[in-house]
Amino acid sequence: MLRGNYTIGVDFGTLSARAVVADSRDGRILASAESAYAHGVLSENLPCGTALPPQWALQVPQDYLDSLTEAVRGAMAQSGLAPEDIAAIGWDVTAATVLPTDGAGVPLCDLPGLADRPHAYLKLWKHHAAQSCAGRIEALARQMNEPFLPRYGGRVSSEWTYPKLLQILEEDPELAQRADVFLEAGDWLLWQLTGKLHRNSCAAGFKQFWAEDGSCPSDAFLRALHPDFPDLCRRALRGEILPPWESAGTLTEQWAGRMGLSPDTVVAVGIVDAHAAVLGAGVNRPGQAVIITGTSSCQLLVDGADVSVSGICGYAKDSILPDLYAYESGQPCVGDMFDWFVRRCVGADDMAEAAECGISIHQLLTRKAAALTPGCSGLVALDWWNGQRSPFVDDDLSGVILGLTLRTRPEELYRALLESCAYGVRLIFDTYRKAGLETEEYTVCGGIAQKNELMMQIYADVLGRPIRVCASDQACALGAGILAAAAAGCHGSLPQVTAAMAAPAVRTYTPDARHTAVYDQLYAIYQAQAHHFALHSDALHQLMALRRGKEVQ
Amino acid sequence: MLRGNYTIGVDFGTLSARAVVADSRDGRILASAESAYAHGVLSENLPCGTALPPQWALQVPQDYLDSLTEAVRGAMAQSGLAPEDIAAIGWDVTAATVLPTDGAGVPLCDLPGLADRPHAYLKLWKHHAAQSCAGRIEALARQMNEPFLPRYGGRVSSEWTYPKLLQILEEDPELAQRADVFLEAGDWLLWQLTGKLHRNSCAAGFKQFWAEDGSCPSDAFLRALHPDFPDLCRRALRGEILPPWESAGTLTEQWAGRMGLSPDTVVAVGIVDAHAAVLGAGVNRPGQAVIITGTSSCQLLVDGADVSVSGICGYAKDSILPDLYAYESGQPCVGDMFDWFVRRCVGADDMAEAAECGISIHQLLTRKAAALTPGCSGLVALDWWNGQRSPFVDDDLSGVILGLTLRTRPEELYRALLESCAYGVRLIFDTYRKAGLETEEYTVCGGIAQKNELMMQIYADVLGRPIRVCASDQACALGAGILAAAAAGCHGSLPQVTAAMAAPAVRTYTPDARHTAVYDQLYAIYQAQAHHFALHSDALHQLMALRRGKEVQ
Repeated sequence: MLRGNYTIGVDFGTLSARAVVADSRDGRILASAESAYAHGVLSENLPCGTALPPQWALQVPQDYLDSLTEAVRGAMAQSGLAPEDIAAIGWDVTAATVLPTDGAGVPLCDLPGLADRPHAYLKLWKHHAAQSCAGRIEALARQMNEPFLPRYGGRVSSEWTYPKLLQILEEDPELAQRADVFLEAGDWLLWQLTGKLHRNSCAAGFKQFWAEDGSCPSDAFLRALHPDFPDLCRRALRGEILPPWESAGTLTEQWAGRMGLSPDTVVAVGIVDAHAAVLGAGVNRPGQAVIITGTSSCQLLVDGADVSVSGICGYAKDSILPDLYAYESGQPCVGDMFDWFVRRCVGADDMAEAAECGISIHQLLTRKAAALTPGCSGLVALDWWNGQRSPFVDDDLSGVILGLTLRTRPEELYRALLESCAYGVRLIFDTYRKAGLETEEYTVCGGIAQKNELMMQIYADVLGRPIRVCASDQACALGAGILAAAAAGCHGSLPQVTAAMAAPAVRTYTPDARHTAVYDQLYAIYQAQAHHFALHSDALHQLMALRRGKEVQ
Repeated sequence: MLRGNYTIGVDFGTLSARAVVADSRDGRILASAESAYAHGVLSENLPCGTALPPQWALQVPQDYLDSLTEAVRGAMAQSGLAPEDIAAIGWDVTAATVLPTDGAGVPLCDLPGLADRPHAYLKLWKHHAAQSCAGRIEALARQMNEPFLPRYGGRVSSEWTYPKLLQILEEDPELAQRADVFLEAGDWLLWQLTGKLHRNSCAAGFKQFWAEDGSCPSDAFLRALHPDFPDLCRRALRGEILPPWESAGTLTEQWAGRMGLSPDTVVAVGIVDAHAAVLGAGVNRPGQAVIITGTSSCQLLVDGADVSVSGICGYAKDSILPDLYAYESGQPCVGDMFDWFVRRCVGADDMAEAAECGISIHQLLTRKAAALTPGCSGLVALDWWNGQRSPFVDDDLSGVILGLTLRTRPEELYRALLESCAYGVRLIFDTYRKAGLETEEYTVCGGIAQKNELMMQIYADVLGRPIRVCASDQACALGAGILAAAAAGCHGSLPQVTAAMAAPAVRTYTPDARHTAVYDQLYAIYQAQAHHFALHSDALHQLMALRRGKEVQ
């Protein structure tokens, strides 16, 4: 029964949770509050001090609950609404962000005596230390012709559920025995808040080799990887799989109380973070693509066709929109690369100049980079600072810069990094095109899209197509609110709710043909060098191997 | 007749002249004084205001005489010696640093009415505006099978005598007619100070296509370049060619008076600046190499064999040591790359930390980089920030960095750049080795060699051989003083004088076999990528073309 006209959508990102209160009739956002995870990302040490090897990225599960409570309470206070005005709550969470729990849903790291065991913690999506497991899973699946593999572009990312679970089994088998359940952070939140163990079809479809047709990893396949793997998977990956817009029931008394909501509040199953943006941006037709840009970037292309595309992250039906396929691809590092750059590579002069002008260092560099013309710096970068997702699916690749000279200036490097992100996007949509999936329209979401006009113009120029920028800087949270409204049965089906609530485009960037002509040449260089380093030269793999060997000494 | 036990060596660099007074019995340096050229380098305007095109680099000849006088007088005053204590004077000068004069040795720019003619001035080695002349000379020499070409690794640099003279003939033919003589600054100094027109065999051999066997540019070849070129060359390049250690006679009365020396002071013929370091560092046997490291770097390998090596700068007999060949190769950017890095790419944090520790930013980064182990950063750079000299001879190549990640730190980049310089040296000596020239011992000279222990250790580890570091930071000036002693007949032949006077090694760095094992792998990556970008991929050339196209718009 519909209790009110408002919904709460919560967007769980890599570093914080943001809750928005939205009007289910028109999508208007009344209030918004954010709460950073207390421990952030653990990449060098556990809270107790235990050192972590390279490529690890862990989190503390309790941080998610604390941030959820604080963000929802903050947004509610700001909205001025009463608990009964809220019909439903939904969320989106970074996916392939997984944790082991006991049978009651208690994270293993919270159990006595396990706080110093790295594998007891939540593994963030960008934990890349399961690469060797991923490699073996992929090779064996290819060899055994496992039917799930073509759905993932023929590749297996180290980020996904199976490699991460296999890593635990191999590196800490005793802990694996204690992992009664191994699940997505989003599904763990659902379990905590409703008492029900379900898995959302979006994460299951994109990160866990699940499909409704049952083309999942076979027991024989799992056994060939490790004799104990079939049992572990059957036990730890249990739970009914539901579509994101379904209702999983209502809040427990305890959680209603903690968040200051009614226990009648409907809870939607939830969705992968980036995928919520498709709904928030109002994308619902074949040939439409959403590019969600933050610390990393993800592209989602909606289409009616069932096509296997080499090197994409995956595709799944009914994962975002009923009866449509969503194709996902990604770039593991966009905003992160610019943060790295300003933290590591910007001199005192530019810092002082930014302070003097009263702007951020990003704004200063963007301003200076905007004064340059395409090609004038003679630089091309491969945007692989955090590995390569689509189309090469290789975490052991790393960043490359070509064309450095004694005249190279920081703003030229900054612009080269912006351009490299755009080339990366073009390479991905070229891959879709070659597989028969045409893209008619690009919509970009995320803070960078709204803040950095230069970047959006470069995207338009490099892709040679108009770029719509989504008006909301909270497209994901709004998408989660849309799911909540659909789960609560407000205003009809999911497409109808989306049409009512989604954010409009705030601006469209049109390509400059002269720039596109230069970028066609630069992109050809990017493309050739990307193929060289991903497929022909083993240099980057060798460097990563050396780095690993040295760091663990 | 030997008048005293002391000699003066003068090192004419790009920006200043430095005179040292040395004891010919043991090489001890008693005094040293430096004097900067009053007009420095003219790259934008003549002194009268006339604008210069891009890539020009001129100087005022009179500056050399004024700095010589001031530096010698300063060093003599400091030494406390009397004029008759000085047996001889010698010098080394940057080579391919050339000027046109009238028949009496007066620089054309000092003649009435010619002060506003750019071609009337001294052209510094790094005047690069004769590139098109160099390209045509090289192409024609290859086509006509001119026997001089193989002595220069099959390539012709725009810096050398013939391209610079051809540029004058084509761009200012009237001035070319007035150029009675066109000669090295070092040979011009000899003419001024002794009244005798000679050319030193070192500059003639390395920069002027000269060899004792007569394999010089043919008349037919010169005529094919320009109908007036054979006559111009025959006239303007005249003068007996003598080895650097010969006596050219004694000082004129006028110059003895100006410098406060005796007119009986013997004057040595003189040598190219970097080449003087071979003597100063005490290198005098086949299989010994000197690496002179400053803003750029030059390598000189001494050998008894006459071998053509592809991609080196050149080789010449009797140019440094009697009866031996010296082979020259180069890296156009070493110190410059580190200056670029700290100016462009070092953050405020490191700057503040260096200030707090009371050390330079170079010292701080070196200290942090020294704490890293080979391979641990997973980075490899191609050291081509200022193009590539040996073995690819290609100014249109540019720098590349592989292996960047979000964890990459400034000190890792700094170390990767240090390593890239060492890989560049190894690539050069591999080229010699493949041509049959083995190197037994490396001696490094220059300020960086003495200041940066980490860099020298990396050189030892990468080359897998001990690295001797020359004790003197004035190896070139000392080498010039050694030539003076030999010319005056102090203590026997040049090898004997060198043995007595050369600076000892201040330290020898021994390779660490574990490091060398890792560097062998990293060098293999460097080598493969160097070949990829220099010979197979056109990416860097395309980027340079795009950059040029933009810059000249």
